[in-house]
Amino acid sequence: MSVVVVGTVAFDSIETPSGFAERVLGGSASYFAVAASFFSPVKIVGVIGEDFPEEHLAIFSRHGVDLEGLRRENGETFHWRGRYHEDLNVRDTVELHLNVLAGFRPRLPESYRDAEYVFLGNIDPVMQMEVLNQLRRIRLVACDTMDHWIQGSGDELRRVMGKIGMLIINDSEARLLSGEHNIVRAARAILKMGPKVVLIKRGEYGVLQFSDSSMFATPAYPLEEVFDPTGAGDSFAGGFLGHLARSRDHSQSGLRRAIVYGSVVASFTVEDFGLKRLTNLSLAEIEERYRRFTDLTNFHT
Amino acid sequence: MSVVVVGTVAFDSIETPSGFAERVLGGSASYFAVAASFFSPVKIVGVIGEDFPEEHLAIFSRHGVDLEGLRRENGETFHWRGRYHEDLNVRDTVELHLNVLAGFRPRLPESYRDAEYVFLGNIDPVMQMEVLNQLRRIRLVACDTMDHWIQGSGDELRRVMGKIGMLIINDSEARLLSGEHNIVRAARAILKMGPKVVLIKRGEYGVLQFSDSSMFATPAYPLEEVFDPTGAGDSFAGGFLGHLARSRDHSQSGLRRAIVYGSVVASFTVEDFGLKRLTNLSLAEIEERYRRFTDLTNFHT
Repeated sequence: MSVVVVGTVAFDSIETPSGFAERVLGGSASYFAVAASFFSPVKIVGVIGEDFPEEHLAIFSRHGVDLEGLRRENGETFHWRGRYHEDLNVRDTVELHLNVLAGFRPRLPESYRDAEYVFLGNIDPVMQMEVLNQLRRIRLVACDTMDHWIQGSGDELRRVMGKIGMLIINDSEARLLSGEHNIVRAARAILKMGPKVVLIKRGEYGVLQFSDSSMFATPAYPLEEVFDPTGAGDSFAGGFLGHLARSRDHSQSGLRRAIVYGSVVASFTVEDFGLKRLTNLSLAEIEERYRRFTDLTNFHT
Repeated sequence: MSVVVVGTVAFDSIETPSGFAERVLGGSASYFAVAASFFSPVKIVGVIGEDFPEEHLAIFSRHGVDLEGLRRENGETFHWRGRYHEDLNVRDTVELHLNVLAGFRPRLPESYRDAEYVFLGNIDPVMQMEVLNQLRRIRLVACDTMDHWIQGSGDELRRVMGKIGMLIINDSEARLLSGEHNIVRAARAILKMGPKVVLIKRGEYGVLQFSDSSMFATPAYPLEEVFDPTGAGDSFAGGFLGHLARSRDHSQSGLRRAIVYGSVVASFTVEDFGLKRLTNLSLAEIEERYRRFTDLTNFHT
């Protein structure tokens, strides 16, 4: 079952305590697409500029990603420059050039509109709603957002949340969105806004999943070296939704296994700069780390 | 199998966003002792002043805690006053009066010296070493410490670490002690200092356990209300070591189950001020939450 992702395709310039990378392939849709591609076919909706090189498009092609919905416009590609602190949970945006993203209106090709699994990456909720309106037979829509939209486009975001099945956000965003500091209360408040399931990403501390009837907590896979946390959240979402689209198992245990697959894929992402590790990854490596993850967390035997 | 704990017995005055408590029973040995008492008999080594009331001693007695090693000295009992921020991970010490603790030298009664399970609470490493020297047949010694001793008594602490089986500290202390920011590297560096096992407490994010051959990660039990985090770490250590002394199962799976029991006990501690919740707790409630914890974290079925 294929997964449609709408989000950014970008140049990222990244500085971390371990080194730096200049104008590498980045953006929420890029990380999501490559991560999900290990499990399911992926279709991207997004925009790039005239400066976007063939070698980046080739990365997507090698992962079987459908690019019919990736429009090329006159102008330059979205560019983000960020710098991480020694505490990798903290980063500063040094430069942000929207470029062609500024005038972007998502248009789904006809071949995308019957997609059943959809990820609305972190973009303007107005655009997220436009995507929702173009879909014909949704089975599961998951959505990300960020403080910028929570604070500036609250009404539009609420409308989107009334239509989605799942919200995937980080803990500080959950607090901001709900006005609750306690993370369990924050999640319960968000469930009242519409989504049936809330996934709360806590970076190196793992993931919490809440629904009306269930709660799941898992740590992150502990790593001795984290080179670059960029894209970890979108890789998690990609691994998660990609696995769910493959299994089509929306039971609580199906969701939990998909969450662990998402965590495993994200743990690879941060082992190198940008998409470097993900594009050199095999499904066998994912399965091997999934087994290690099981051993890491199991206290029943 | 009984557990000996050496640590502070104190008056705590606590202010949190949920309320305040004035001069309630506190101190590392108090939390540890009550937490461990659900699983094993406990013997306290510590000091109190003339002002320490019978009703507090009665709390220990109700939990079967042996008080032969709790000396009463002329003077006032150790008193700590702290204030928590809205982010309960952050607290300020507002007042600290060592009082009778200032001249304390731990002396183990004869009946304590054959104890096989020992917890060296967070006190001066010189005192921790004095306790070690009075023990005859150690099976497992676990030790806590804090930034104050890491920075000010590094040599003494290193000597203690060469003699213990297990270090139980929080993540910021592990970073300080090892000089490594990455928590996996920090744990590996600490293992080289002597202990066979390192437990790293991450508050609401759970616990990591490292040994040369194994790694275990578990989240904390998510709570909708946290009234007072005071004593959570010592309650964890008490539940953990108490359970281990009962099971005498030092295998990796035995350690893991004990870690989860410790986490469960700590999750009760923070539900009310001071020791209030722990002193109104039953083993049946602990077992029930252990089952919930299993369901919370299980993704295998």
